[in-house]
Amino acid sequence: MDKLKELLKDYKEGKIDEEAIVDYVSLKPFEDLGFAKVDHHRRVRQGVPEVIFAEGKKAFQIRGILEEMIKSGDLPVLITRLSKKKAEKLKDLGIDYDEISRCATLGELPKEGDRTVLVFCAGTSDLPVAGEAAITARFMGAKVRSVSDVGISGIHRLLSFQEEINKADCIIAVAGMEGAMPSVIAGLARVPVIAVPTSVGYGASLGGMAALLSMLNSCANGVTVVNIDNGFGAGYSAALIVQER
Amino acid sequence: MDKLKELLKDYKEGKIDEEAIVDYVSLKPFEDLGFAKVDHHRRVRQGVPEVIFAEGKKAFQIRGILEEMIKSGDLPVLITRLSKKKAEKLKDLGIDYDEISRCATLGELPKEGDRTVLVFCAGTSDLPVAGEAAITARFMGAKVRSVSDVGISGIHRLLSFQEEINKADCIIAVAGMEGAMPSVIAGLARVPVIAVPTSVGYGASLGGMAALLSMLNSCANGVTVVNIDNGFGAGYSAALIVQER
Amino acid sequence: MDKLKELLKDYKEGKIDEEAIVDYVSLKPFEDLGFAKVDHHRRVRQGVPEVIFAEGKKAFQIRGILEEMIKSGDLPVLITRLSKKKAEKLKDLGIDYDEISRCATLGELPKEGDRTVLVFCAGTSDLPVAGEAAITARFMGAKVRSVSDVGISGIHRLLSFQEEINKADCIIAVAGMEGAMPSVIAGLARVPVIAVPTSVGYGASLGGMAALLSMLNSCANGVTVVNIDNGFGAGYSAALIVQER
Amino acid sequence: MDKLKELLKDYKEGKIDEEAIVDYVSLKPFEDLGFAKVDHHRRVRQGVPEVIFAEGKKAFQIRGILEEMIKSGDLPVLITRLSKKKAEKLKDLGIDYDEISRCATLGELPKEGDRTVLVFCAGTSDLPVAGEAAITARFMGAKVRSVSDVGISGIHRLLSFQEEINKADCIIAVAGMEGAMPSVIAGLARVPVIAVPTSVGYGASLGGMAALLSMLNSCANGVTVVNIDNGFGAGYSAALIVQER
Amino acid sequence: MDKLKELLKDYKEGKIDEEAIVDYVSLKPFEDLGFAKVDHHRRVRQGVPEVIFAEGKKAFQIRGILEEMIKSGDLPVLITRLSKKKAEKLKDLGIDYDEISRCATLGELPKEGDRTVLVFCAGTSDLPVAGEAAITARFMGAKVRSVSDVGISGIHRLLSFQEEINKADCIIAVAGMEGAMPSVIAGLARVPVIAVPTSVGYGASLGGMAALLSMLNSCANGVTVVNIDNGFGAGYSAALIVQER
Amino acid sequence: MDKLKELLKDYKEGKIDEEAIVDYVSLKPFEDLGFAKVDHHRRVRQGVPEVIFAEGKKAFQIRGILEEMIKSGDLPVLITRLSKKKAEKLKDLGIDYDEISRCATLGELPKEGDRTVLVFCAGTSDLPVAGEAAITARFMGAKVRSVSDVGISGIHRLLSFQEEINKADCIIAVAGMEGAMPSVIAGLARVPVIAVPTSVGYGASLGGMAALLSMLNSCANGVTVVNIDNGFGAGYSAALIVQER
Amino acid sequence: MDKLKELLKDYKEGKIDEEAIVDYVSLKPFEDLGFAKVDHHRRVRQGVPEVIFAEGKKAFQIRGILEEMIKSGDLPVLITRLSKKKAEKLKDLGIDYDEISRCATLGELPKEGDRTVLVFCAGTSDLPVAGEAAITARFMGAKVRSVSDVGISGIHRLLSFQEEINKADCIIAVAGMEGAMPSVIAGLARVPVIAVPTSVGYGASLGGMAALLSMLNSCANGVTVVNIDNGFGAGYSAALIVQER
Amino acid sequence: MDKLKELLKDYKEGKIDEEAIVDYVSLKPFEDLGFAKVDHHRRVRQGVPEVIFAEGKKAFQIRGILEEMIKSGDLPVLITRLSKKKAEKLKDLGIDYDEISRCATLGELPKEGDRTVLVFCAGTSDLPVAGEAAITARFMGAKVRSVSDVGISGIHRLLSFQEEINKADCIIAVAGMEGAMPSVIAGLARVPVIAVPTSVGYGASLGGMAALLSMLNSCANGVTVVNIDNGFGAGYSAALIVQER
Repeated sequence: MDKLKELLKDYKEGKIDEEAIVDYVSLKPFEDLGFAKVDHHRRVRQGVPEVIFAEGKKAFQIRGILEEMIKSGDLPVLITRLSKKKAEKLKDLGIDYDEISRCATLGELPKEGDRTVLVFCAGTSDLPVAGEAAITARFMGAKVRSVSDVGISGIHRLLSFQEEINKADCIIAVAGMEGAMPSVIAGLARVPVIAVPTSVGYGASLGGMAALLSMLNSCANGVTVVNIDNGFGAGYSAALIVQER
Repeated sequence: MDKLKELLKDYKEGKIDEEAIVDYVSLKPFEDLGFAKVDHHRRVRQGVPEVIFAEGKKAFQIRGILEEMIKSGDLPVLITRLSKKKAEKLKDLGIDYDEISRCATLGELPKEGDRTVLVFCAGTSDLPVAGEAAITARFMGAKVRSVSDVGISGIHRLLSFQEEINKADCIIAVAGMEGAMPSVIAGLARVPVIAVPTSVGYGASLGGMAALLSMLNSCANGVTVVNIDNGFGAGYSAALIVQER
Repeated sequence: MDKLKELLKDYKEGKIDEEAIVDYVSLKPFEDLGFAKVDHHRRVRQGVPEVIFAEGKKAFQIRGILEEMIKSGDLPVLITRLSKKKAEKLKDLGIDYDEISRCATLGELPKEGDRTVLVFCAGTSDLPVAGEAAITARFMGAKVRSVSDVGISGIHRLLSFQEEINKADCIIAVAGMEGAMPSVIAGLARVPVIAVPTSVGYGASLGGMAALLSMLNSCANGVTVVNIDNGFGAGYSAALIVQER
Repeated sequence: MDKLKELLKDYKEGKIDEEAIVDYVSLKPFEDLGFAKVDHHRRVRQGVPEVIFAEGKKAFQIRGILEEMIKSGDLPVLITRLSKKKAEKLKDLGIDYDEISRCATLGELPKEGDRTVLVFCAGTSDLPVAGEAAITARFMGAKVRSVSDVGISGIHRLLSFQEEINKADCIIAVAGMEGAMPSVIAGLARVPVIAVPTSVGYGASLGGMAALLSMLNSCANGVTVVNIDNGFGAGYSAALIVQER
Repeated sequence: MDKLKELLKDYKEGKIDEEAIVDYVSLKPFEDLGFAKVDHHRRVRQGVPEVIFAEGKKAFQIRGILEEMIKSGDLPVLITRLSKKKAEKLKDLGIDYDEISRCATLGELPKEGDRTVLVFCAGTSDLPVAGEAAITARFMGAKVRSVSDVGISGIHRLLSFQEEINKADCIIAVAGMEGAMPSVIAGLARVPVIAVPTSVGYGASLGGMAALLSMLNSCANGVTVVNIDNGFGAGYSAALIVQER
Repeated sequence: MDKLKELLKDYKEGKIDEEAIVDYVSLKPFEDLGFAKVDHHRRVRQGVPEVIFAEGKKAFQIRGILEEMIKSGDLPVLITRLSKKKAEKLKDLGIDYDEISRCATLGELPKEGDRTVLVFCAGTSDLPVAGEAAITARFMGAKVRSVSDVGISGIHRLLSFQEEINKADCIIAVAGMEGAMPSVIAGLARVPVIAVPTSVGYGASLGGMAALLSMLNSCANGVTVVNIDNGFGAGYSAALIVQER
Repeated sequence: MDKLKELLKDYKEGKIDEEAIVDYVSLKPFEDLGFAKVDHHRRVRQGVPEVIFAEGKKAFQIRGILEEMIKSGDLPVLITRLSKKKAEKLKDLGIDYDEISRCATLGELPKEGDRTVLVFCAGTSDLPVAGEAAITARFMGAKVRSVSDVGISGIHRLLSFQEEINKADCIIAVAGMEGAMPSVIAGLARVPVIAVPTSVGYGASLGGMAALLSMLNSCANGVTVVNIDNGFGAGYSAALIVQER
Repeated sequence: MDKLKELLKDYKEGKIDEEAIVDYVSLKPFEDLGFAKVDHHRRVRQGVPEVIFAEGKKAFQIRGILEEMIKSGDLPVLITRLSKKKAEKLKDLGIDYDEISRCATLGELPKEGDRTVLVFCAGTSDLPVAGEAAITARFMGAKVRSVSDVGISGIHRLLSFQEEINKADCIIAVAGMEGAMPSVIAGLARVPVIAVPTSVGYGASLGGMAALLSMLNSCANGVTVVNIDNGFGAGYSAALIVQER
């Protein structure tokens, strides 16, 4: 409210008129009260860079957004759910594309922080989702470590990562089918676990609903859940958790 | 078909007439062709004693059935889902009642077999279902061992039972909430695992559907599943699996 | 693995025999490899005090657990989902009972930490769940602030808490019906938001499933979700997030 | 019933015979009792022009209907869910095609009324549905204003349209994912809000069911809901609401 | 913003100090910027009187709210979902209670408007919901007419109300079971139809979901839908539709 | 339309005036055009006696309806879903009450027809539904035969009724749990089979949905299905099927 | 059992030996006890011709079956769910193909019976299912009449078919979306109504589940239901209903 | 633990150093403590050969795995869900491909055991799943017998296999649509029955959920269930059941 006080002082001194204060207070310019313009200042407001969800957008549309960002210096940018085909059409812009996670970044990533997000992936079919989570967290400044192929049917392999679990500041656990891995991991960990159900499975997996329900009903403490296949959401939240405040 | 041959011989020799054979062959007395009368001879046909599902039956009705069985010597008998209140009304018949599993037996149980059914129970709230499974399997002649409170959030406790797992001939794994325990156990075992989801949980457990779906989507091999809270079904199938053939 | 090396040295020197090492390595005493006995050492392993889920437990059972804990000095302890009736039966043990959240604690709570968990509650019917979250987080050492009655249909009231949002290190957002409040809050915050759907509502709220699905599909970044009515889970995870590491 | 009285008078006077009255009263020509023939007179009966739902109809079939309408002067006509491909095959008939909403109109639209339908659209992926709603309402004579990209995760942008909300006579709020926007808007408005869930989303959005349930459970007053992606239905009802009566 | 201008004038003239304006503008008292205090001024903001949803509130709590309202002159007030038992405890306050709809009002209702809301009720079991809708609409100033027992299995009875349909400005159609009545009515009407599914039915009615889905999929134009049993919501929206603007 | 012609003749001859015809033709008394008055003439229109669905009606309300029917001679009447408690309050009216099916009749039933409805009931818990079906069909004039306790797990018992199946003109098959019995029966029959799922079961029976889905997916030809526990509906349709036309 | 008697006579006379009778009676050739060989004698057993469900079968497989049937004189035959493409590959066999219903017949159809099946179809998109029902019923010997485009939103058009309804012996009502038409028709009819839900619709139609649930919950008497899009099942049952017995 | 004892002996004798034992015991190579390396020694641990789930894997990836297995002598291997197209690309490796079940094996199968798994298949569309079950069981050493086309609508054909049922040691029952066949078979058998629901069906079969629910609710004893279309899981469990222990 300091700015308002300044304005009031100016107003009393006759430097500005009544309307200037009314405008300032009215809802429309509310964003200027510290929230900035949506298009260019979101990074300022929420402290995070821009992200483009590519699914459903055409290559030329993504190109348009990217070009505007390059022009305004609004980098780095993360592009998720980007098909290989579209990625190839954007290659000349200098994007860095990861085929498995279908993510791309453009611009220099922020310096890696001190605290670690550990990403566990149950099966090879879950890798795209785990990759999206890892790249998102790294894009937002987190240090990321990844472990794959640690399903609960071979529990000893999973247990062999106890040391990595102990060192992590936040864990993302990605699993399809019965989605039980996050519960086991949370039982081994002292940090928050974000569970990501995937649509991997068939029949009664109901497109990932079985894994989702399983994770929501976890008997282990410290587990929160995101939408099916939402690697981005998990990476984003994990990065918020490990960010320095 | 030996009996038919006998009848045919009798018929040729004029001892019986044509109608006797037609009657014998016709659909109605089909049960006499080796399948026996339903009420008293089911044990002969399927090789198992009688079971009464008490839910929805009144105490006096159960008493009626039991008294007839006592009269015809059709013992032992198992009664499942029997409330404490009804059990008390039947005490004078000499039933052996277990309050936790809400099961009762009447008559001498068959001799314990050589092969073992191992019953794992995830939480204390799952005990009624695990108890029903254990009593049913024992009632059908299996040797039964039980382990409780081995949820997957404390995985090391579960792992400490590896030796028991190795000795079992069939495993029943009872769990509510996310229902992940059977998958972990199947990864440690070389014998069939029967998973029993329970209705323990709240919210998105959907009355046990979350656990059920989880078990059906198990990434571990060797897991089959029964209905929610169906301890009887699991115990019955386990006993069939370990029976001498 | 240092202990193993010591043992090996002792073994070579003839102080212990072969069996001692085999025992140490075998699965059963695995817990002694730093994981401790489940009953009394869990606090050591996961760094959190004990919690009793009272639903489905009888008063005398809870009393038994509490008395053992008092004896072993295993305090403080948190009891959730404790009905008023049961609480009254336990009053003499010195529990501190909160009627709205149906939670009780026994023993001195840990010192309040420096970082804040902010609990938003949409409607008065959601208060029990929000209270459970707040008490759980406080029980685990977090500083907790609560705001109630901030549904999204009166958005300006919610917006008036922007300052509190800015000061929080983690936010818990509790809402039933359409469950939209966490999305709005996440749009205003720079810290992780844990969304808790409640079973408040009727008809197509499907016992809280509508709110749960809504939260899982949040268009805002930084939202993770727990089970319906699971205030405890949210408080627990929030406390893990704000704990000093 | 005035017409019947006239006929009866004519009948008594011998101008018409008995059969004429029986015909008039019998069920078949019921439509002539003020409801008109279905094909050509529906506009008269319900006061609205004809609409063709193009999905599932082939281009030549739509052409057939349109040509008959042109011939009988039954214009204007609205065609919804018309693919670009089919639209091109009908270009020569003079249709006015909007690619985003996949709607086309043929013939002069009715004069714009005095009262306003305001269409809010949450995300760019929801634009086809919002467009269908806007075109339908305009086609039925309403004045339509549209605002896009006002998701609730950036609530201040939405709030900046308070003035538009105040001026509207009916609001259509189109949103996918968690579908929370209509609730926020209804809290800001004094007029009826029609919520349109879209199938935008993935995983637990369940093809739009999450948004639909969210809207049905709105904690804000004054919200009614239509089927998933049913922009037409919302536009139609909104136009009925703002029509002069 | 007139009040702000006044304040600014006062401020310039030295009548009030800077803090008074800051207080006025700051987010907390935001409601005073034209939105009023929630408790007492909501009527001003949205133009509607106060409503109390009694379900889950105790009689003494409702009494408390009512007494404050009486004191502040904030009448009339509508109380919905009020059980007969609670109503009796509040009788001395002078509430006007309707047993069927379980609604009560206190204070003089607004003058009946010129435009009509017509409430159709399919079966006698749907009467509580239809009653809630009727009372709510009347409470908000609408003229209300009601017709009961017009299920679609006796279609001619329903058709006999064509004249009433023609005279209505908005129709509420309340039905359980297959929920088809609103579609038939919308085919006969030229005004908006608000469909209210009820939980009347059994088995595959799924607590009203069958009726809800039926209404959302209506093949008739002009139908919007509210939550199961949400007579209040329908009455509220209908009153908004027929209000003079 | 014969009556109309008569009236017209009378009108021309001056026996009746214009208004009499207008009244006759107007929508309200439409029922007199061959459809009769709803209350008293429904039997005429659809050829069936009156039925009262007692669930949700109070004893005194049912008494009121019955007394009016007795007075107008509108007997026989069938009352379904009538609790024992209510039945006792109506005893003095002379109703004939069946405790298992919770049905009562009042008045002399129509003469038994020549064609037979055969009712199969899978388990003893399904008897109330089967009984409702049998009584309804008999009430409507059908000859009814019933067979109980013929679940498919003891298929030979079911097969022993081939002769009864061959003699039936329509079969009703009532089953809960997996609901497979109607499929087996339809494979043995040459007449229409009406399948009635019951809510008997637990867990994944989902209140009868499992049986309902099973019956809808029957691999046998000639099966149609009614709602869960809808014995009345099955009996009614079966009676229509066997009625002489 | 006549054949058995013959065999017994032959046996007594020494024409056949004991084994011949044992073979005849044993389970394998059970079909010869009056049930015939499945492939060729099913018509005899159930009194209906053969039907081929073409979906999932390749053209050459269908050809194989048809050629065998032609050879053995097992005609006529009905083929359902036959794509146009496959139909063209079978043209040379002389099949009679209907493109809308995707059904084909081969061989002379049975003489049309005296009793009528009336098929109502709600919308043009429902025509394939209605066509399948009509062809199936006709194939089985019923007289079939069809009426299309009689949705309930234009109720007067539907009412204009009262006379056809009165003449029918059984009615099939085919509808998608809200599936309400069968309820309206059953209210107008005195004969059994078979309701067929179709998958026509989108969003909350849930692939036809909305229509299915609607029909199962019909408030009208005399309605039974078949699976979504199961025109064949409806036609089959309707033909059984109208067959002479 | 024998290997550990050996190592200890070697260590005491100075043949190996301390580190060798630490390495052996440490968590990573934990598998060597009797559980073997995952890639090559799984057969040792669980007593079963390797299996590749081909769905979602590319031909070249499968080739890579197979070539490594051939090199290490890790045969036989089973490949499930292998499309014909991929199979052709692997032909040169010498795989034995079954087109119907889409399974392939490579290497000599284990000797057929003494005990029999009997696979029942309801319809021809269920053959791929039944085939997968049969090949899996055989691959694991079981003796397998198969019976097809024994749906319950032609119950006598199913009954004719009583002798085969009597001889089996474990039965797999594969069925889609209403999934009732396993219940009938379990009523005829004295051995465990594993029910496999298939996704065969349409409409209310809900992708196999109807069959799955049906099987879980079986009224027959001795039935356990696997996921929809999970022939592999059923074959695997059946082989475990009949294996010599």
